[in-house]
Amino acid sequence: MNIQRRGRRADAAHTPIQQLPWQQPQHTLAPSRILSDDQVEAIHRQSLKVLEVIGMDVLLPEARDILQKAGALVDGERVRIGRDIIEEALKSPPSEFTFHARNPAHNIRVGGKWIAFAPVGGPPNVSDLDRGRRPGTLEDAGNFVKLAQFFNTVHTAGGASVDALDVHASIRHLHITRNKMVYSDKVPFIYATGRARLFDGLEIIRLARGISQEQLLQEPSAYTVINTNSPLKLDMPMAMGIIEMARLNQIVVVTPFTLLGAMAPVSLAGGMVEQNAEALAGLALSQLVRPGAPFVYGGFTSNVDMKSGAPAFGTPEYMKACIIGGQLARRYGLPYRTSSTNAANSVDAQAAYETVFSLWGAIMGGGNVIQHAAGWMEGGLVASYEKFALDVDLLQMLQEFLKPVVVDEAEMALEAMQEVGPGGHFFGAQHTLARYATAFYQPMISDWRNFQAWQQAGSPTADKKANALWKQALAEYREPWLDPEALEKIDAFVARRVSEGGEKTDF
Amino acid sequence: MNIQRRGRRADAAHTPIQQLPWQQPQHTLAPSRILSDDQVEAIHRQSLKVLEVIGMDVLLPEARDILQKAGALVDGERVRIGRDIIEEALKSPPSEFTFHARNPAHNIRVGGKWIAFAPVGGPPNVSDLDRGRRPGTLEDAGNFVKLAQFFNTVHTAGGASVDALDVHASIRHLHITRNKMVYSDKVPFIYATGRARLFDGLEIIRLARGISQEQLLQEPSAYTVINTNSPLKLDMPMAMGIIEMARLNQIVVVTPFTLLGAMAPVSLAGGMVEQNAEALAGLALSQLVRPGAPFVYGGFTSNVDMKSGAPAFGTPEYMKACIIGGQLARRYGLPYRTSSTNAANSVDAQAAYETVFSLWGAIMGGGNVIQHAAGWMEGGLVASYEKFALDVDLLQMLQEFLKPVVVDEAEMALEAMQEVGPGGHFFGAQHTLARYATAFYQPMISDWRNFQAWQQAGSPTADKKANALWKQALAEYREPWLDPEALEKIDAFVARRVSEGGEKTDF
Repeated sequence: MNIQRRGRRADAAHTPIQQLPWQQPQHTLAPSRILSDDQVEAIHRQSLKVLEVIGMDVLLPEARDILQKAGALVDGERVRIGRDIIEEALKSPPSEFTFHARNPAHNIRVGGKWIAFAPVGGPPNVSDLDRGRRPGTLEDAGNFVKLAQFFNTVHTAGGASVDALDVHASIRHLHITRNKMVYSDKVPFIYATGRARLFDGLEIIRLARGISQEQLLQEPSAYTVINTNSPLKLDMPMAMGIIEMARLNQIVVVTPFTLLGAMAPVSLAGGMVEQNAEALAGLALSQLVRPGAPFVYGGFTSNVDMKSGAPAFGTPEYMKACIIGGQLARRYGLPYRTSSTNAANSVDAQAAYETVFSLWGAIMGGGNVIQHAAGWMEGGLVASYEKFALDVDLLQMLQEFLKPVVVDEAEMALEAMQEVGPGGHFFGAQHTLARYATAFYQPMISDWRNFQAWQQAGSPTADKKANALWKQALAEYREPWLDPEALEKIDAFVARRVSEGGEKTDF
Repeated sequence: MNIQRRGRRADAAHTPIQQLPWQQPQHTLAPSRILSDDQVEAIHRQSLKVLEVIGMDVLLPEARDILQKAGALVDGERVRIGRDIIEEALKSPPSEFTFHARNPAHNIRVGGKWIAFAPVGGPPNVSDLDRGRRPGTLEDAGNFVKLAQFFNTVHTAGGASVDALDVHASIRHLHITRNKMVYSDKVPFIYATGRARLFDGLEIIRLARGISQEQLLQEPSAYTVINTNSPLKLDMPMAMGIIEMARLNQIVVVTPFTLLGAMAPVSLAGGMVEQNAEALAGLALSQLVRPGAPFVYGGFTSNVDMKSGAPAFGTPEYMKACIIGGQLARRYGLPYRTSSTNAANSVDAQAAYETVFSLWGAIMGGGNVIQHAAGWMEGGLVASYEKFALDVDLLQMLQEFLKPVVVDEAEMALEAMQEVGPGGHFFGAQHTLARYATAFYQPMISDWRNFQAWQQAGSPTADKKANALWKQALAEYREPWLDPEALEKIDAFVARRVSEGGEKTDF
């Protein structure tokens, strides 16, 4: 506690990782408003017009039937959805609900002022400083579940944070979901890219929770993300996913992937209209299947590099889209999903600034579920171990930032100022001694040693410190308790479904 | 314009730097509120109590006299300032004013919704990837002025961005200020660390602008930063600086450097009370000298690492302090100065995330003058060439983020969506072609090539790209026009003052 003693701090690697306790943060700051109320209404009205005038191509006959019965005009695959259908659908979804984990202490609230951070999902590749960039394996996928379980600031077990390319696609979901439920007791994501995958995933989750079908129907216990095929198209598995998840009262996050200038108009207002139209179409389908089914409004509008067509993330346009998306979701009283993103190729300054700009947009946009918040790299092509560890530190900082400030006589510290007096210092003050151990956030990555001490320690940059952190986290990780009977049932189910061939594929 | 063509973008180093035009951004988002109005009033009232009950040590007799004449109670060096004096002082300063540059096109507005980004000021050391970390020189100081002049998103010429340790302290200010006014036509900072330095600086500025003493008195043309000696102390040069700058109607930025747990109470509310008390004392002195003198409320509250005492920046506590400082400045109708900071030792992910967290606090705090916004490293011990270039890209992104969004029929792009139709793409749409060249921000550092193309290019991390950017900027830099007669007068003045010995020092 002496300003001269910079650098004497004990090497963090020799002590257990100190992290914040499990807690779901809340929005304590009012969300930002980029658009006026009139502009929000203009986007809303134009979205309704898009659905009425252009409509969407819906490839699944069952989905077309459901929409047609509600009054939509069907012409081949094209479905034109009237504003009455949308306005009706907006009446039923909950604005806030509980998402059940197999450990009730890890249940989360979705919507309202609640924030949940979810880890990276979906990349085919994985990367770390030791082994470089390579295709993901089942072991890697499991490691990311373990990291998501270990770090308290990550609120879900994730999807396959990285794909397990060493397992055939037909049975991959079985192994991944099994591991997810065994390695973690936090809320799970399931893939809806096929009917068997979806039902297998739900069954494993049900077995892990040890609950009946009836209870599962009452308690949202899984979520999936439906990426519409922007512009204005909903393919078979995506429509099936909305229908079956809604039918079972499980959580659907409809997230149009509207890259400005590619799958959406080049103008931000146009991209937001398209995003909104597609999200509202997904909402209508879900609420027609089951009014009141839990639904999350997803936004993923960003721009491309117009010189090369490369997707870009964490850009000014991305930040604006995050905030406007939040305005629209709140216009509808829907929980809002956004993301923490970047397009960098290494865990360098670019990865960090694009990520924090994304988080700025996500938090000031009032995001409720912040997807890809730990480990995302290269615009989603890579799940990075180091980025995961680095992101966890960023998310903890946000949690601290969002904690309310106490202003009372004790905190305003008049007596301490009197004790210390002009020109003194507070290191030894009673007020300081009573508080210093917990007064400030203690980062896991940031290196605040002076240059000489840092240099003597080998000049560790943040990516190197992150490398040490994820390794230590995996070493300290312990499997959460799971009823041995449930584990037996899960393994038996997985063995049976593997022997049956899992989800049929044509390769 | 093909999503397959990632990576074919021409090497930026072979074309002139493309940057945003000169423009002062404005706050388009409502500032965030961490404290309730009641809490802001509680901090305000407690600050008044601190000034009345504890008071401040004011080392300059002239300053004590001024405060005593206004009714303050003087006891030795201790000055207790009544709330009537503060309330009176709050009536006179302008909430917004023009800061005059020698090139009127580079005048800036200070206060209100205006934002100005100022470069790093003050570090004794300089760093770049080629030559490493070393003491600053006059050449380095000049280079930073050139970079501040070259990049349009930097709105001031800066102080000595890095100190010129190869020139004796007695005459250093003469050479630095001379170079600043020759290399740049943007608004200048001057040091107030001695009477001769202050008057020499103002005279060089007056000669460069080619104006009379009378006009200088009418037009704020220089600013200085007064760091109170926290806690609750104002030393001789600092008090002299407030008095003389106010007397001459030049801009005083009073910025208490209140590190929580060191020079201020460990609690955030206590730190804010101390910051506020010291800033209000500075305001009182300035307004007693000249009611209406331009005054900026500065905040620089951060925390220390309680394990080592090392100062920390861009932390959750720092972000909160930035936002609360803004609430207090707006409570008083005063322009607000904040900073972009970090405590990293290299231009890595930590440098970037601490910087963007700082900027988040600065922007959502409603900062008007954002100091150290380009080049600051190691908590202010180093001015980094690479960090300067990287920061300029971040500042441009903020400018783009703050631009209002247009929502009209053309931007909402219904026709483009009709033209493209479900499942199509917008690359070739008329709506896209008419807008793509300027639709999105084009970063100078961010590398959006795919991994393979990036790897083939030598895997350039952001710090390497920043290295190329500052070198190219210095190569493209051109000295702004200066009347040869003015230059002659400046050089004659500097030569005379050098021969007279400049500011007397005791070493």
